[in-house]
Amino acid sequence: MIYQNDLILRAARGEKTERTPVWMMRQAGRILKEYRAVREQAGDFKTLVETPELASEVTIQPVDLLGVDAAIIFSDILVIPDAMGCRYEMIEARGPNFPEVIRSSADLKKIHIADPSDLAYVTDAITLTVKQLGGRVPLIGFAGAPWTIFAYMTEGKGSKTFSIAKKLLYTDPVFAHQLLEMITTSTIAYLKAQIEAGAAMVQLFDSWAGILSPVQYAEFSSRYIRAICEAITEVPVTIFAKGAFFALEDFATMPCNTIGLDWNMDPADARQRVGDGFTLQGNMDPCLLYAQPEVIEAETRAMLKAFGPHRHIANLGHGVYPDTPVEHVKTFIETVKSYQQ
Amino acid sequence: MIYQNDLILRAARGEKTERTPVWMMRQAGRILKEYRAVREQAGDFKTLVETPELASEVTIQPVDLLGVDAAIIFSDILVIPDAMGCRYEMIEARGPNFPEVIRSSADLKKIHIADPSDLAYVTDAITLTVKQLGGRVPLIGFAGAPWTIFAYMTEGKGSKTFSIAKKLLYTDPVFAHQLLEMITTSTIAYLKAQIEAGAAMVQLFDSWAGILSPVQYAEFSSRYIRAICEAITEVPVTIFAKGAFFALEDFATMPCNTIGLDWNMDPADARQRVGDGFTLQGNMDPCLLYAQPEVIEAETRAMLKAFGPHRHIANLGHGVYPDTPVEHVKTFIETVKSYQQ
Repeated sequence: MIYQNDLILRAARGEKTERTPVWMMRQAGRILKEYRAVREQAGDFKTLVETPELASEVTIQPVDLLGVDAAIIFSDILVIPDAMGCRYEMIEARGPNFPEVIRSSADLKKIHIADPSDLAYVTDAITLTVKQLGGRVPLIGFAGAPWTIFAYMTEGKGSKTFSIAKKLLYTDPVFAHQLLEMITTSTIAYLKAQIEAGAAMVQLFDSWAGILSPVQYAEFSSRYIRAICEAITEVPVTIFAKGAFFALEDFATMPCNTIGLDWNMDPADARQRVGDGFTLQGNMDPCLLYAQPEVIEAETRAMLKAFGPHRHIANLGHGVYPDTPVEHVKTFIETVKSYQQ
Repeated sequence: MIYQNDLILRAARGEKTERTPVWMMRQAGRILKEYRAVREQAGDFKTLVETPELASEVTIQPVDLLGVDAAIIFSDILVIPDAMGCRYEMIEARGPNFPEVIRSSADLKKIHIADPSDLAYVTDAITLTVKQLGGRVPLIGFAGAPWTIFAYMTEGKGSKTFSIAKKLLYTDPVFAHQLLEMITTSTIAYLKAQIEAGAAMVQLFDSWAGILSPVQYAEFSSRYIRAICEAITEVPVTIFAKGAFFALEDFATMPCNTIGLDWNMDPADARQRVGDGFTLQGNMDPCLLYAQPEVIEAETRAMLKAFGPHRHIANLGHGVYPDTPVEHVKTFIETVKSYQQ
């Protein structure tokens, strides 16, 4: 595939780029009124995720409307448990809910390794999106990291502490590893299907990394992230583990290209800890985008300066908050695009 | 004051101790059925906080029932905004709520520097508790760190992102510093009154430290923590800033004695970063206490080994979760008390 704009791929591979590429986690989402219109048309979130034409439409919106340097397929990390036989519902204003949870080795009989053909709605959306983008920018595929998926499948819903999920790591580590293995195998096949369909790079989201201790994280999360990185050799891989500041050195021993940083991390400190062999992605505080444009500009320039001109993909340190004014989002993106180091 | 058990004071001052002292954040609370009985008698949380006899009773319960090496006065960090004229309500199963929030310099006219005499219910509870403890163990006083108090006063309630509070740091830093100054002045006078009443050491809780970037934390939180540490010269001071792994080096330049660690932090890494001049407190994952006793014992011993025999106060890395079985709590405490390095 020849791209008109392949800045993000070159940055991920460590090539020098004429400017820093920029995209935003959750760029295809509620910040855009055009998204909200399609979301309303779909009726509910899960239908939007499962309808390739609509998912593709909202995926492309931020490329057209915000001028970002990459699209990311509109989907949800919870399609994996769903395809494993552990169905989720998305409850308005409350988040995901699993009517049946998996909490023991006996429960594993209720689920199975996901078959990528059960996730054809995602791969079809990718095929359609790549075709419609026509090489304007690369499309990013993604999946949840196994620990985060495990947390939802065992806890059954979002939680501040995920204490049910974490308790299982202490009380039944054998079961925990069994389920994590199944999720990992499912995820590798799923990411490969996304790449086959046209995803030019992939990102792993470990959204609940930060609730584990460093010792538990090493045992129950990073080893599975490593297995995925080792299996995905086709395209650049990004690891984004929210709150896992303690795992940076470990990520820097994995065959990945890019390490995402949340806004708690200092760019210079992160660079020093991972060395020069990785691209860093992030890490503006999403709350900054509530500020006045001149503050957004100044802070964005300070971030770009802190990361330096190469091996950096500009992004927020978390998904953009849904009530962020779209003009402020544009200020962030334009500031990155016009910055000269 | 002569204590029968002053392990925690000696550990805080950096003296060698015959064993590691242990207490638990939220030890006076819902884990104890004896607490729940007094709480029911009080009717509501705020009445319990504001009735010295009852607050004192629940403060002493964990000394009698769990054998901890320190009591911590039963109270709430939100008594400071309350005494400043920004009243809070505690809503069952939902948490604190402020009917009137402070969001601009104009709003500052509605509040004032807290007068410790308006917090006599706390200092009276301390006087009573010290008398009733009769020197068995020291009593810890506490307050919220200014940023955390600011977050509640501006946001008006708990929040995952505290985006209203954080937005103000970007949009109106002048107001933010005005309010933070008022909170800091109030807190210093309040802590001095607690010490006057008999608190043998004090702890600052920066519960929402972890939602700020390192740059914002330096500007809007740690400078006020430093001011408090500089003002409190009478007794040992502990800083516990949840999620502020990035601020450890900064805390280690402050005149405090003890730095609390949450369970995300690695003990050896923290020791290396703060040097030998500080006592560390923590940092067991509160979820461990859901596990089987033999797992609790093994993990607790591993923690004690990681911290080493001196300059350590054993604790959890966060308040104990209310549904933790009390027998498991006792296993944690007994394991610390019987451990020989």
